[in-house]
Parts: sequence; C-alpha cells; structure tokens
Amino acid sequence: MAHHFPNGADVLVSECGPRDGLQILSETMATHHKLRWIDALYDAGLREIEVCSFVPARLMPQMADAVEVVAHARTLPGLTVLALVPNLRGARAAFEAGADKITIPVSGSMAHSMANVRKTPDEQVAEVARIVELRNELAPRVPIEANISVAFGCTMEGRVSEDEVIRLAVALVAAGVDDSGLSDTTGYANPAQTKRLFTRLIGEIGDKVGGAHMHNNRGLALANCLAAYEAGVRIFDSSACGLGGCPHAPGAAGNAVTEDLVFMFESMGISTGIDLAKLLAAREHIVTGLPDVPLYGMTWDSGLPKGFVAAKEARHV
Amino acid sequence: MAHHFPNGADVLVSECGPRDGLQILSETMATHHKLRWIDALYDAGLREIEVCSFVPARLMPQMADAVEVVAHARTLPGLTVLALVPNLRGARAAFEAGADKITIPVSGSMAHSMANVRKTPDEQVAEVARIVELRNELAPRVPIEANISVAFGCTMEGRVSEDEVIRLAVALVAAGVDDSGLSDTTGYANPAQTKRLFTRLIGEIGDKVGGAHMHNNRGLALANCLAAYEAGVRIFDSSACGLGGCPHAPGAAGNAVTEDLVFMFESMGISTGIDLAKLLAAREHIVTGLPDVPLYGMTWDSGLPKGFVAAKEARHV
Repeated sequence: MAHHFPNGADVLVSECGPRDGLQILSETMATHHKLRWIDALYDAGLREIEVCSFVPARLMPQMADAVEVVAHARTLPGLTVLALVPNLRGARAAFEAGADKITIPVSGSMAHSMANVRKTPDEQVAEVARIVELRNELAPRVPIEANISVAFGCTMEGRVSEDEVIRLAVALVAAGVDDSGLSDTTGYANPAQTKRLFTRLIGEIGDKVGGAHMHNNRGLALANCLAAYEAGVRIFDSSACGLGGCPHAPGAAGNAVTEDLVFMFESMGISTGIDLAKLLAAREHIVTGLPDVPLYGMTWDSGLPKGFVAAKEARHV
Repeated sequence: MAHHFPNGADVLVSECGPRDGLQILSETMATHHKLRWIDALYDAGLREIEVCSFVPARLMPQMADAVEVVAHARTLPGLTVLALVPNLRGARAAFEAGADKITIPVSGSMAHSMANVRKTPDEQVAEVARIVELRNELAPRVPIEANISVAFGCTMEGRVSEDEVIRLAVALVAAGVDDSGLSDTTGYANPAQTKRLFTRLIGEIGDKVGGAHMHNNRGLALANCLAAYEAGVRIFDSSACGLGGCPHAPGAAGNAVTEDLVFMFESMGISTGIDLAKLLAAREHIVTGLPDVPLYGMTWDSGLPKGFVAAKEARHV
C-alpha cells in the first residue's frame, strides 16, 4: 500500500462533513455557506472532501445543490472532489457533474441494505458492477470506492457477520472498484474488532483497501482509527466538528471529529498535511451556516497544547 | 505484573469521580448524595473508588466531608477506599480515617508542582518518603500510590521532560511507594507518547507500575488508555460521566469517561468486572446531586449496541 498523498502526508484525512455531516440535519446549509466552508477546509490543507451525495432532492433537500457544489469544488487545485452515489442514476449524475471520485455504500446487513438502498447486499454489488461499466464508458479516470456500511454491527440486526463483510468487499473488488473500506455507521466498533477486520481485509484485497469510516456513538472513534492505523489503514474519513449520522441508523452520532483526529495524528508525528489552526478556524463557517446545530470537538474546546508542534515541524527539531 | 483484580477482572477501572470529578466544581455535592452515588458505583461492580482528598476544607469545600465519606465507603465489602493526599498532614488524616489506600500527586514540571503542592518535585518526593515512614508506623497495610502529574505536558511549561518523569517515578519507588503511574492531567498526551512512556516506565520499575490517568481535553483519553493497555498497563483511572479537571491546570477537561472506557474494554473482550447497565444507571445520582452540572458520555447518549455481550459472557458463547 504505497500511497502518495497530497502535501507529502502520511495519511489521508477525507473530510465527509459536507455530505455525511449535513445529510441527517433538519436544517439545510445554504449553498453559499457550503461553498465558503469547503473553501476553508481546502485552505486548511484537506485534499479530499466528500462534498455531496447525488440523491433525489425530495428525499434529501440538504443535497439539492450537488451539481453546483461539485462545480465550485472542482475549481480548487489538487482537491479530490468526492461524491456519494447510492445507485446507477446517482453515479451518472456525479460523472456528468464532474466529480473526481465517487463512493458507493454497500451494507453488511440485509436490514440496513433494504432500508438504505432498497436492495439486498448482492443486488447492490450488481449495481456497483453496472456503475463500474458506466464509469469505464463515461469517466474512465474517476476512481470508484465502495465501502461496507454497518461493517461492525447494525442497529437493526445487531451482530454483523465478519465473513459476510469480507465476502462483499472481495466481490466489490472483483466487480472492478478501485478500493473498498469499512464503515462503522452505527458506532458499534471496538479497537480489537477494528484491527482484526481491517487486518483480514488487507490480507484479502491488499492495496485495494480503502478507508476507515468510524462513527463516535460510544466515544471510540479515535481509538478505532488508531487500531485501523495499526492494521495498516492510511485513509480516514472524519467530519468537521463531529457533524453527521445516518438516517437509517437510529441514534447514529457524528463521525470521528476531524479536528481531534488531525490532532491525534499530528501529535503522534504522523503528518496529515493539514494546518490545525486553520482547520479549527474553519468552524466559524459551520456556526454561520448552521446557527442552531450543536457542534462538538474537544480540541476546539480546549485549544492546542502549549508548545504544540505539528508532525512536519517535529521532524526538523 | 501478575495482578489479581476483584471479580476476576482483567483490568482495574479505578473510579476517581468522587474526588477528581467533584473537586473542580463550584457546586458541592451534598454528603448524602455522595454516599448514595458511591453505593451505586459499588453496586455496578467498581472495586476501587477514589472517594475524597484530605485537604483543608477552606481550600476545597467539596471535600470537607472526607472523614464521613471514608467511614461510609469502608462498610462496602471488598471495596478499596482510595483517598488523595497532597502532603504528610493529609496522609495522617487519611490513615486515621481508615482509607484502604492513598494516592499522592508528584508533578513532572516545576511550575505545576509549585502551583499544586507549593513544593519542588524533589521536595515532594521527600514528603512522600516521610509519608511512607508514617504509613509504616500507623497503617502498615495501606498501600501508597504516587502518580506523576502533567507527565505528558504542562499547561504552564508546555513540554515535560520524559527523563524527568522517569527519574521521579524511580525516586518514588526508591522512597518506598507501592506503585507509581502516570497522569495526563492536562489532556496533552497522544497514543504514541503514552505507549512510549509507559513502556519505558515498566522497563524501569516493573510491577511497581501503577495506573494510567488520562484526561480527555482533546478527545484522546480512550485512545491513550488503549495505548497504555498495549504497553502493559492494567489499571485505569476514569470518572463517571467524564466529570473532573484540575484547579491548577486551566482548561483541563474531565477524565476518561468511565462508561465509555468500560464499554471499550468489555466490547474488546477484556473484563472489567463491571455491569455496564448498572453503571449507566448510576448516572442518576450525579444528576440528582449536581443538578446544574453538564455531564457527558457517548455510551450514555447512544445506549448499548443491540446484541451487546460483555466480556465474561462472550467467553461462554
């Protein structure tokens, strides 16, 4: 897994706030606020941002401006503009809009799969194969990521079979996706399970392993990211100020908090390419754009430690 | 480090809420609430509780009932009643009150040491030696723990020398303490540093290594506890509902949240001897006793996962 990340970073922190963070809210962030927020995240050094999902606007009004958001994000040099698509129709829209990369959710449990995409997991794998064909035709340079949702447990079914999660990821790679990662959609994961499942996944699909997408429902998101890192994962989804959740995973809290995740890696000497002070300052765009949404983030509350040195500077000391 | 923990637990979760959790609050929990809360924590399976500190009541009115609290806690069979003492005078009071174990803070930085105990670190080590002598005379069966405060960084001095932290712990063991652990009083620690420093400490003092006391200022308390566990630490301080802080470490957030820490270990198959449902229910005593204090804890907010199995039951599946 020889990754070459922008800014010479050791890990890629993939910001999913503008998609995962906004989709569950009853409030909708106005487009002009969203664009300024994305600009600020980019200015802080984020080089992959999941800016939207291509879903019917009547189902998810927060994402109604997807085409405009992608068009703007494409103007930021070196940014990978990532869009979530649940199906072939969404994928076509994303390719036409000019997304740089797409991500497709495939559930590890039947119940979550039916609730989220109205298909069985295997039907969704078949849909992914059709998306790969469309990509080869319309947008051959656009990588496709397909992550396994509820990979660590499901609010409807409880335990999710690890064999099934691995089988689906292997099937997705066979279907032609560029990488497949694991999502703890429900915040059920623990570090031992995270390390075990990612180690097994890497054993099966090697450098096709994608990211760790860990929610923070029980406070373990960072511990689980650490465990995934120890297993060899180098791509981490997170959400600014911990925004987020899943409409079909009741009680799902936000994703790993981007600021806290970046603090963890940087303080460990693992470079993210991100300027923490600028990242913390980007919060103001969420406060302005979503004045009634409660935010969190411990690094924001406490500030950076006295004498804090980021990973890159630490190497020159 | 062959520990024998109560209830056949693999790790000892040492609850410090009634001391560390309450000491920084402007509100004072009434004694009768405190006793019911300690009872509930005990009923949940906690077998070491830091119930108070022996300090002048004019400095810390929250701890004015220390003698009464120890007397009550001593009636709970099998509970290690732990009390913090900053100096010889406090130690004498704790021995006279009948504490089962005492803990003494020794700062890793000069500035924190002067603010916290008005002594240099070396003067505090000398005070600990006097406390060991008094213990040998008055209460020979009472173990003494001395943890290094601000071991991972200081809000006044910034970086703290790892050599100095290790030197102090070694000096404390030479002075006769039973164990010495490390406290991230300020929430500055990261997992790499935590693993490195505890590994080095264990290399120096072996089975005299004490606990990991990790604050959550930047959201890393659980990741740091995981790193300490991987280094070989088996004793973890935490605070119910994340209560806590240090009056001389400005901006210090609460300790690792007991509920989330227990969830992490239990879901990893590491037994704590604690009943999570009862532990979560014990929260009501804080809500009743401190109606105006904001609490937190992600496991409380989200509840236990569907199909959750505690470590001990998992072994029988």
